[in-house]
Amino acid sequence: MRLHTLTIVGVGLIGGSIGQAVKRRGLAARVLGIGRHQASLDAALGRGAIDEAHLDLEIAARQSELIIFCTPVDAIANQVLAAAAVCPPGTLLTDAGSTKAAILRAVDGRLPGGIAFVGSHPLAGSEKRGPQHADPNLFEGRLTLVTPTAATDPAALERIIQLWKSLGSRVRVMDPDDHDQALALTSHLPHLVASAMAGILPPDFRELTASGFRDCTRIAAGDARIWTSIFIQNREAVLSALGLFTHRLADFQKALESADQAALAQLWSQAKQVRDALGS
Amino acid sequence: MRLHTLTIVGVGLIGGSIGQAVKRRGLAARVLGIGRHQASLDAALGRGAIDEAHLDLEIAARQSELIIFCTPVDAIANQVLAAAAVCPPGTLLTDAGSTKAAILRAVDGRLPGGIAFVGSHPLAGSEKRGPQHADPNLFEGRLTLVTPTAATDPAALERIIQLWKSLGSRVRVMDPDDHDQALALTSHLPHLVASAMAGILPPDFRELTASGFRDCTRIAAGDARIWTSIFIQNREAVLSALGLFTHRLADFQKALESADQAALAQLWSQAKQVRDALGS
Repeated sequence: MRLHTLTIVGVGLIGGSIGQAVKRRGLAARVLGIGRHQASLDAALGRGAIDEAHLDLEIAARQSELIIFCTPVDAIANQVLAAAAVCPPGTLLTDAGSTKAAILRAVDGRLPGGIAFVGSHPLAGSEKRGPQHADPNLFEGRLTLVTPTAATDPAALERIIQLWKSLGSRVRVMDPDDHDQALALTSHLPHLVASAMAGILPPDFRELTASGFRDCTRIAAGDARIWTSIFIQNREAVLSALGLFTHRLADFQKALESADQAALAQLWSQAKQVRDALGS
Repeated sequence: MRLHTLTIVGVGLIGGSIGQAVKRRGLAARVLGIGRHQASLDAALGRGAIDEAHLDLEIAARQSELIIFCTPVDAIANQVLAAAAVCPPGTLLTDAGSTKAAILRAVDGRLPGGIAFVGSHPLAGSEKRGPQHADPNLFEGRLTLVTPTAATDPAALERIIQLWKSLGSRVRVMDPDDHDQALALTSHLPHLVASAMAGILPPDFRELTASGFRDCTRIAAGDARIWTSIFIQNREAVLSALGLFTHRLADFQKALESADQAALAQLWSQAKQVRDALGS
């Protein structure tokens, strides 16, 4: 894949890393960055993540072959529609949002002819924020989920798959609803659990935490705004994952209440087997 | 602190690390290691954690000034009593167990005259096991909790505090019940939560996990036997910490069910503030 002009909307950790990866791999002659704050844009410029910075999405949309939206999930659909309204035909749009179904429902059927949007979600990132933490190798060996719908143009899908592969990622194609169900369990629930656990720590117990508590709650340091919007967009799937989790907690509680050593050992061993299979 | 003979009972990650730290810092002329399996003892000898290996606790107990029990929490009290029965007067005993009240209740008032046991808990360790993961710097800058009771001899307490400081640790003196209440929340609950979350992951979702899920569940890879015994020994405090946690989960659930963005943002921000204060 070799583009003339690529635009990244939202130059935070993910957007900045995409820009650095694109430039390091020579995938685009020009990378434009769009942001709401000049300071983030300047940081992205300084980190070599973008060549030009703009506060106005439409200026960039008019001159791009490909636009990647790396903004909070509740902003993506409106930005996609705004950009699509002014893009030249043939422009390809994708995103990096952690939810997919709500975005696709808001976009599908509302794009002008010749403009394609394909949903994506790279499973990369961290509790850190901002272009100062961007990493051109962030996608190397990671998995990106690409989520076509019945409305998706097969050629556009193929180009987006190639884009992520060009950035070093593996790609798996998934149905958007399946994506949201799975990610509710593998990503959104852990964030909720980490926040619930961090939230109940009394200040005078802080020095009594060791690596277990710190590992387990690390992602609670994520951005409140971003995670609130993910929870809201995917709330039914998150509620169902939370139901599964509280059910398993109740199994632990029952085993503890009855001091049932065998039941506890069984719950623990099964969990250890799963965790061991994940690797470090 | 400078000892002639120190014995470590249980030469796993913690026991092996104590042995390496003692030898590197020249705190004892001879370090004896006690284990149930020759293979672990050989590994500890090979890693320079001990000078001599024995399968029989009593042989070592007869010739030690200080014995540290680094065995599963449900084994410690019986081993302390067995060692105390054959130790010369003046021998000092301590442990590294993750629970304190049950051990102290089982030991207090049952030691021969001239033998002192002081409970300890170094907040160090990981999901890894065995002397092959021992690290002489494991206690450097970490906190060790020392938990005297009304029966504890002040001179013995002072020597145990000095021991941990000599190994590079900071020391905080705590009541054993307060210790168990606090650790239920800061250590035992995270292990339970990590296990519950790892346990509900379907095999086909494994490749959909990223660093959030992995961090959050890392400690579920801990040893099932060791953690089952910790949960059983501290089950009332763990149940009460679990109650606090499920109450907070219910707050999240309620906010999600009513799509209450402000309540979610508030829960999230409060948790982020706590987590940010903990540092990495």
